[in-house]
Amino acid sequence: MNCELISVGTEILLGDILNTNVQYLSKELAALGMNVMHHSTVGDNEKRLVQALHSAFSRCELVILTGGLGPTPDDLTKEVCAGYFGCSLYEDESILRGIEAYFTNKNVRMPDCNKKQALIPEGSIVLENRNGTAPGFIMEKDGKIMVILPGPPGEMKPMFEKSVRAYLKRYTDKVIISHSVRTFGIGESAMSERVEHLLDGSNPTVAPYAKSGEALLRVTAKAENEKEAEKLMSPIISEIKEKLGEYIYGIDTDSIEQATVKLLKEKKLTVAFAESCTGGLCAKRITDVAGASEVFHCGVVSYSNEIKNKVLGVKKEHLDKYGAVSPVVAAEMALGVRSISQADFGAAVTGFAGPYYEGCEDPIGLIYIAVTDGELVWLKKLTTGHSKGTACRDYNRTVSASNVINEIRLLAAAHPEKRSEGADIIEYINSF
Amino acid sequence: MNCELISVGTEILLGDILNTNVQYLSKELAALGMNVMHHSTVGDNEKRLVQALHSAFSRCELVILTGGLGPTPDDLTKEVCAGYFGCSLYEDESILRGIEAYFTNKNVRMPDCNKKQALIPEGSIVLENRNGTAPGFIMEKDGKIMVILPGPPGEMKPMFEKSVRAYLKRYTDKVIISHSVRTFGIGESAMSERVEHLLDGSNPTVAPYAKSGEALLRVTAKAENEKEAEKLMSPIISEIKEKLGEYIYGIDTDSIEQATVKLLKEKKLTVAFAESCTGGLCAKRITDVAGASEVFHCGVVSYSNEIKNKVLGVKKEHLDKYGAVSPVVAAEMALGVRSISQADFGAAVTGFAGPYYEGCEDPIGLIYIAVTDGELVWLKKLTTGHSKGTACRDYNRTVSASNVINEIRLLAAAHPEKRSEGADIIEYINSF
Repeated sequence: MNCELISVGTEILLGDILNTNVQYLSKELAALGMNVMHHSTVGDNEKRLVQALHSAFSRCELVILTGGLGPTPDDLTKEVCAGYFGCSLYEDESILRGIEAYFTNKNVRMPDCNKKQALIPEGSIVLENRNGTAPGFIMEKDGKIMVILPGPPGEMKPMFEKSVRAYLKRYTDKVIISHSVRTFGIGESAMSERVEHLLDGSNPTVAPYAKSGEALLRVTAKAENEKEAEKLMSPIISEIKEKLGEYIYGIDTDSIEQATVKLLKEKKLTVAFAESCTGGLCAKRITDVAGASEVFHCGVVSYSNEIKNKVLGVKKEHLDKYGAVSPVVAAEMALGVRSISQADFGAAVTGFAGPYYEGCEDPIGLIYIAVTDGELVWLKKLTTGHSKGTACRDYNRTVSASNVINEIRLLAAAHPEKRSEGADIIEYINSF
Repeated sequence: MNCELISVGTEILLGDILNTNVQYLSKELAALGMNVMHHSTVGDNEKRLVQALHSAFSRCELVILTGGLGPTPDDLTKEVCAGYFGCSLYEDESILRGIEAYFTNKNVRMPDCNKKQALIPEGSIVLENRNGTAPGFIMEKDGKIMVILPGPPGEMKPMFEKSVRAYLKRYTDKVIISHSVRTFGIGESAMSERVEHLLDGSNPTVAPYAKSGEALLRVTAKAENEKEAEKLMSPIISEIKEKLGEYIYGIDTDSIEQATVKLLKEKKLTVAFAESCTGGLCAKRITDVAGASEVFHCGVVSYSNEIKNKVLGVKKEHLDKYGAVSPVVAAEMALGVRSISQADFGAAVTGFAGPYYEGCEDPIGLIYIAVTDGELVWLKKLTTGHSKGTACRDYNRTVSASNVINEIRLLAAAHPEKRSEGADIIEYINSF
């Protein structure tokens, strides 16, 4: 079944609201095997909403609308949709009691305008709203289906889960299942080249994506049921694994930190961070993962040279001779924080995140990363290429932190063996 | 001028990507006095993209497209748009050199498929991409304007700022100017009540918003020019300042950390953080602000009791007697990190971020915050009320970090006077 999403609300067109509803609904509909062909957003305007409904039903059988069910006069989605299908509205006694009860529970008087929310299109299926006052609706006419949901995600999502998903299931005969193969350390184009012959398939499809220095392949299959879909994807995923081996950090994993925490937990290993340019981002991302306390006890953000020396034990003469952004200092930071924390691994990062300013002589985007198990230190030099504009700071910090976390992942993956050296990893000789 | 946004990408229709571009562009266009009438999203599909262009130009003069400029064969926005205006594509030597240089700077070989990105529509204005390989374009024909931008926000936004905004300014006769009055420590409804009489205006408009424990008022005016718009807003903003005084941390400030870094710089003060439940988030947010190195030298993420004791000097008997989540431990963490770093202020946070799991007895959402100038310690207890579901961890960490940073802001604002105690701030007696 082809479907289309229409978001209603002038506040979305003004940029006051980030529209998260369409992402949620698109995912849910894909999982039901529906083809989402189009997203539209229109303002709270009768003429343009009618036009959007008209366009949508010229292409699709199912239209899901969100927003414009509020109590104020500018909210008109329900009225326009009922009119489009030629239904009249009536006041529903029990819905009105429900809305009154919602306010009573909050010890607040019901404003008169909320009465409007008890008006129901004739012949519609009413969807109860347990998290607000606006009910939702499903209307069917001549093979066309309209689902009307409230705009606030906290009301829309539970309503979809409780009522709409089950309703739509009867219209789907196929399922669409996706798996994301997530990689680190290889660009989107280089990744695509390695699996080029897989990108032309139609079922399963394989599509490449890039985001903040990471690249992923999404494998999607459509079939009669989940098992059939998995069977279609299995050989494709095996081939991707073979072609991208070392770069893959997880399949359907949310993030590289999640993969890393999982691996450290499995191997009962701990890590500590010493951060300069990332300013706490490595620790923050590791502790985003619930249960990180098993693998992470200590981080030091050593933004100044003094703290690098005093807290982490980086030698003052090395700071003077090589500068804070140098392989030697990165290595000593990693060794220092490992020693303070008694963690299995120490990881450190120092670099120039930017932004560039007039007269700045630092090579913005130059980053050194060190990881150590206490015996050896593995070093990595990054030149991110992002040295200009205000956005480079954010990019450089994100990519640096991802690299630190990935180096720890690679170290842990090899453990208890020593990690064999990668192309740009050199062994640190403890003899400066 | 009426305009419409078209996002191109099957990954958006599948729900793989949250479309933040449309919010950014909608805000920017509103600020230029443009009327954004419609947002559309279509897949990487020639027929449907042509249809979307056709619909858009039947309603608007300006269409801005994002996405589908990548190097792979499924990226076809440029080709379809050029075809729509009847332009052919040619390979531009200097653009190709630029793309090659982008890869050389990263020490990576340019994959062959990236050559496609050097194809330029005849007669278009080419927009340089400093953050990626896909250039953008502006094409004009018969009073219709097409602006084509790359999909990744880190490439699209700088391109808009550097080239598109200035280009579009010539087409606007009115300007819309907004100011955001940002507050911390007061809820959206309480804030709205204090300025209720201002919320009914039409020019300027005043609208309340809430986000992650913060509330803001957006004041917006439309006028012939910037000066007129400012004149309309000035008395309204003065009145808001009077009604909300102490809660306001900035006007048009991006974040509470930006306001805090600015204030610390002005007063030549420094701060250090000791973080438990926020796991580095306070340090990360302060160092998000470019130039934070002037005010921040050191942070310690002490996730375990051992590190709290060994690195920060929290007394072992206090950890045993009161537990890690206690006012005493928060205070000793703040005093400890201040002493290590020799910063003017030390700040600490310890709490239960969650998530709740079966059998968990911790009161999720209970957080203690301490800030100190070395003589006194100000303590704050938070009970966030977010104790359930997987999202509570993220919420609790964000709100905790915001509170830590805000306490530092209040301390710095009072300096060199001692900060007078707030309702929920108690003086720490150094005598446990």
